[in-house]
Amino acid sequence: MNIDMIRAAALRLEGNVVRTPLLSSPGLDAIAGRRVLVKAEALQVTGSFKGRGGWSAISALPDDVRKRGVIAYSSGNHAQGVARAAQAHGISAVIIMPSDAPRAKIEGTKALGAEVVLYDRATEDREAIGDKLATERGLTLIKPYDDPQVIAGQGTTGLEIAAQAAALGVAQADVLVCCGGGGLTSGIALALEADAPGMRVRPVEPQGFDDATRSLISGRIEKNATTSGSICDAILTQCPGNITFPILQRLCGPGIIVTDDEAKQAMIAAFRHLNLVLEPGGAVGLAAALFHGSEVEGDTVIAVASGGNVDAALYATVLAGAG
Amino acid sequence: MNIDMIRAAALRLEGNVVRTPLLSSPGLDAIAGRRVLVKAEALQVTGSFKGRGGWSAISALPDDVRKRGVIAYSSGNHAQGVARAAQAHGISAVIIMPSDAPRAKIEGTKALGAEVVLYDRATEDREAIGDKLATERGLTLIKPYDDPQVIAGQGTTGLEIAAQAAALGVAQADVLVCCGGGGLTSGIALALEADAPGMRVRPVEPQGFDDATRSLISGRIEKNATTSGSICDAILTQCPGNITFPILQRLCGPGIIVTDDEAKQAMIAAFRHLNLVLEPGGAVGLAAALFHGSEVEGDTVIAVASGGNVDAALYATVLAGAG
Repeated sequence: MNIDMIRAAALRLEGNVVRTPLLSSPGLDAIAGRRVLVKAEALQVTGSFKGRGGWSAISALPDDVRKRGVIAYSSGNHAQGVARAAQAHGISAVIIMPSDAPRAKIEGTKALGAEVVLYDRATEDREAIGDKLATERGLTLIKPYDDPQVIAGQGTTGLEIAAQAAALGVAQADVLVCCGGGGLTSGIALALEADAPGMRVRPVEPQGFDDATRSLISGRIEKNATTSGSICDAILTQCPGNITFPILQRLCGPGIIVTDDEAKQAMIAAFRHLNLVLEPGGAVGLAAALFHGSEVEGDTVIAVASGGNVDAALYATVLAGAG
Repeated sequence: MNIDMIRAAALRLEGNVVRTPLLSSPGLDAIAGRRVLVKAEALQVTGSFKGRGGWSAISALPDDVRKRGVIAYSSGNHAQGVARAAQAHGISAVIIMPSDAPRAKIEGTKALGAEVVLYDRATEDREAIGDKLATERGLTLIKPYDDPQVIAGQGTTGLEIAAQAAALGVAQADVLVCCGGGGLTSGIALALEADAPGMRVRPVEPQGFDDATRSLISGRIEKNATTSGSICDAILTQCPGNITFPILQRLCGPGIIVTDDEAKQAMIAAFRHLNLVLEPGGAVGLAAALFHGSEVEGDTVIAVASGGNVDAALYATVLAGAG
């Protein structure tokens, strides 16, 4: 896993994914008390950064392997990223999703031509289900984060951040990344190590699901007690991966933990000041920028707004909390 | 008013406004029955394309004129565009706004340091109020659309559309533009005439406020009976301007008229498929792409999503209509 793989992924992704803008607003700066730059990955194809990793992994497969099809397990965003890339490559995709995933994500995945298999997040092990189906049908498993080509795809976000921030004269900043299994976080960290070494990645997690934060403190992979119970469905992963964690450990600053209510307030702020729809799990980076300023260093902070696939009913409920 | 003024405006705007992405989604394509490309001006600084025109006009003023300050009348988006540009140039701005403008727009304008003067949209003439204050205080009036430098600024949207569509291999398309006084529509038409002559601009208006559509049919400037009564507050202008109309007449195809309900459905579609917040008046171009396909020509249609400054309560109400 190295920067050359990220640069190679960027070439494969060119023209197939969105170079998302780095947005800002005086309103966000006022809340945070410093300049806030928001990498708007909710505008990415399939509505989250997972559109990058899915494309990177599938485009990297040898032709004869790829044509047999792929399988993935996902709460919804990785599902759509893999499904879209599979559809565009003309291959089949089986996606294993938790039965309590947002309807928008399940429907979005089906609309991209994938076969969706639902499982119970509380009682079943999605990795076991995935391994079994992959073996039975000869499919290639595209893991959601602990796969070098997936990490390389997510890391292209970091290459863009480095270039876009440099164009604004920003070379030093904490970069706050919504962290589930660490694919996006480790990919961005590797990209910034090469292209913006003055920046420092900070994993951001929901309260009660702070596995990465605790793992960075203890120096070994720590697990969450559960993988359900927060509004931030996209990032309720059990623990950092065997590939992602050593990268986090080598390159990241301390984790930041935000509450579900702070995530909701960040969703409202993105609505009001950026006209950008964020899902709860995609808003925790911005929540940290806005409400945990004392844990952040520097005049400028960069928040990665990683996704926006939220059901209309939940979004309307969150907006009802706007002042 | 010519293409050179638009290119000059683009140079003045560079680094000061957002080069907004041209977004797409299989979900929108499925609704429209053709490829849909969405120019996401709701992501522009100040939340609408007006961030371009305001900057263009103020940056084009001679120093000694500019330093005396500016004045503008606006339902809210032009207000914020002018206020932001004035603040960035270190000059004062007085903004005349209708008392029934969305709170988000009034608050947004005040937050950008402008002095806001409210008037009654049904009984008072905002142009008369503007002229009087400008004379009394020595301010330069920045008109919302019938000003060559404002049109030049809005036209930079068209330069970007031409380049971004060309990168996707699209040279021919109807370009559906939300049309109030015609500043954005005429500016984009001029830009595309030069850089993408295979494209044709189509003004889109809300039912009951189809002044541009009727003017194009009759060949003279037609007025709306009223300037209130549609949800599309941003584009309820009395009639096309003396500068904008001849450009519309020379370059645009027939107008398209959409209902308020279609505008709301387009807002829901942009939420669901693009994670993009649109205000009603900023959604009529997309509404025409999605629901008036029989009036549009070609395999690809480009919709300009011109703004997203909508109050949270109204947005939540619209989302409640999502299926």
